[in-house]
Amino acid sequence: MERLLATYHITASPQEIEARAEALALEQSVEMPEAAITREEIRTTTLGRVHRIAARDAQTFEVTLSLAASTTGFETGQLMNMLFGNCSLQPDVQLVDVMLPPSLLAAFPGPRYGIDGIRERLDAPHRALTCTALKPQGLDVESLAALCGTFAEAGLDIIKDDHGIANQAYSPFSERVRACQRAVRAATSRTGRKSFYAPSISGPPDQLRAQLALAAEEGVEMVLAAPMLMGLPVFQQLTREIFPGPVLAHPALTGALRIAPPLFLGRLFRLFGADAVIFPNFGGRFSFSQEACHALVDAARGSWSNLRPALPVPAGGMSVERVPEMIEAYGTDCMLLIGGNLLSARSALPARSREFVTAVERASRGEHR
Amino acid sequence: MERLLATYHITASPQEIEARAEALALEQSVEMPEAAITREEIRTTTLGRVHRIAARDAQTFEVTLSLAASTTGFETGQLMNMLFGNCSLQPDVQLVDVMLPPSLLAAFPGPRYGIDGIRERLDAPHRALTCTALKPQGLDVESLAALCGTFAEAGLDIIKDDHGIANQAYSPFSERVRACQRAVRAATSRTGRKSFYAPSISGPPDQLRAQLALAAEEGVEMVLAAPMLMGLPVFQQLTREIFPGPVLAHPALTGALRIAPPLFLGRLFRLFGADAVIFPNFGGRFSFSQEACHALVDAARGSWSNLRPALPVPAGGMSVERVPEMIEAYGTDCMLLIGGNLLSARSALPARSREFVTAVERASRGEHR
Repeated sequence: MERLLATYHITASPQEIEARAEALALEQSVEMPEAAITREEIRTTTLGRVHRIAARDAQTFEVTLSLAASTTGFETGQLMNMLFGNCSLQPDVQLVDVMLPPSLLAAFPGPRYGIDGIRERLDAPHRALTCTALKPQGLDVESLAALCGTFAEAGLDIIKDDHGIANQAYSPFSERVRACQRAVRAATSRTGRKSFYAPSISGPPDQLRAQLALAAEEGVEMVLAAPMLMGLPVFQQLTREIFPGPVLAHPALTGALRIAPPLFLGRLFRLFGADAVIFPNFGGRFSFSQEACHALVDAARGSWSNLRPALPVPAGGMSVERVPEMIEAYGTDCMLLIGGNLLSARSALPARSREFVTAVERASRGEHR
Repeated sequence: MERLLATYHITASPQEIEARAEALALEQSVEMPEAAITREEIRTTTLGRVHRIAARDAQTFEVTLSLAASTTGFETGQLMNMLFGNCSLQPDVQLVDVMLPPSLLAAFPGPRYGIDGIRERLDAPHRALTCTALKPQGLDVESLAALCGTFAEAGLDIIKDDHGIANQAYSPFSERVRACQRAVRAATSRTGRKSFYAPSISGPPDQLRAQLALAAEEGVEMVLAAPMLMGLPVFQQLTREIFPGPVLAHPALTGALRIAPPLFLGRLFRLFGADAVIFPNFGGRFSFSQEACHALVDAARGSWSNLRPALPVPAGGMSVERVPEMIEAYGTDCMLLIGGNLLSARSALPARSREFVTAVERASRGEHR
């Protein structure tokens, strides 16, 4: 019987930790007292087991449980349920790591394109990539398309919708996608350089299907999706079935605390098929530490079974001035996302956007500014 | 322009709080510096505003933002995005309350059945209701169906799948539903008392659709669904479209977020259509306080626009001995969920189950044990 290993950080005293770990193993498997199990085969298979307990400090322990792979049904939602369904409600528990056996890895093929696939589509085999966001939500379709054109003209690689742009009355998805695609095409026919518009898909399954089909029809090369807003199983299934290009995952609603971000954004999003993963960079508007960001980047693109590496996309209060620092931190296998800092230039937006593109090219060649 | 109000608890010093609140208003709306906004109408409409700041203690503040209703696109996922998408990543912020304008309330009709609808289907107009869970996962279909029959024979109202029972090889959904429905029907034809089996639905949208259609076809009266495992928009759309009966919502994976449980489970799950809401009761395996449980129960069944009240279902380490205490705490407009405590009786399971049913009937009549 194949087992998966799930590792948690648990706050407890040294006196309590063994009992606490055993209780967690019950909670995340049979969800009943062990004494109430009448079948011996349930005890040897389905029952979760404490695999390892290690002290981290006087009040926290690293506890690894072994769970039967069969309990996941080899499906996204149920895998999350086994890993963190009930114990998400217990504030002393954080999920920090997962090791999956071959049967589970086979059920989740991961990114279809990954770093190499995205590079190939952009004809950019080596340098770091650039990304920006159409903002703010509330702009009409014409204004968003004009912005899109400006960014494409400046040579940005990916121009994504701000993640708050959904299907609102002021910029409905279908009109927006058509207008932005037109604007990007017009600009790239002038520059001769590839630029892709990545619209944000959202809503219940029917709406998502319609949006993905329209995007494919309009020749969209990449979409933006927030897996936790639409549901992880939906993300895993829909993007793969309907849309033929890479998927950029957004961390909205993932929370910062209870599933360690390197695991959630770096590994689980990748497992569920994200080709590129946006994350809040250190030193910006979010409180992710530099250490956590490096762990996340390693998780997204490090070697993991047969899964393609996902492209890490640091974001959140970044600036053109920080480009050399960010490329020094992450190397060139990343895509830098700068939004508000470009728009703050107001009328100097085209110049500022070109400055961003140039800064990334220079830093990618190792040239200092 | 209609606005919604979202209230957060924020950890900050009195010196920082104004700037922190303003930053949150930007984060949850335009997601860019205010100075970068070039259109005046964005400033007066889409831009989030700080509505109110009140000190809670020396280091926490209650901050209410006013956000444009139009930004939600009147859709579940985007509403969650506006309320807590990005700031879920900021550990100093907790979402605690929401006030919705008429246009948003009209977009979310809430429970289709609610407390009255569930009572009517069960022919139980006044007493508290009873619920138990088929456990543990790992049992084969025949054993689950036998358990189901035992519980129905004892007169339990709702017999739900344990939330860990999904579509695993050892008890596939379709075989399980057919067998459990047969067992319940056989038992109720003997007792003359209604008992409903509530199977757990799970997976990506295609699987959910197929499961809901099969459940409807087999005459299933109620289903169990974990909105955060399948995705909130999926929960809101699919349950309503395909399955004609009440939906019991499970809190799996909700705790990873910093959204106050009375708001999330009590109000938002209700808003998105849950007819009954399972929550971890105080004094059990979870750490919810008595105060939080009462707030959650009030939120689930209190008056709120035209939304039907949802049935609160306290669970998680409950026992038959606690029945009088629980009914004293919540009154009779609730459904008590006891799982492991019944199964712990092993061979005395039928007697213990009848004891549960009787205890609820007596406590509902105000009789002391």
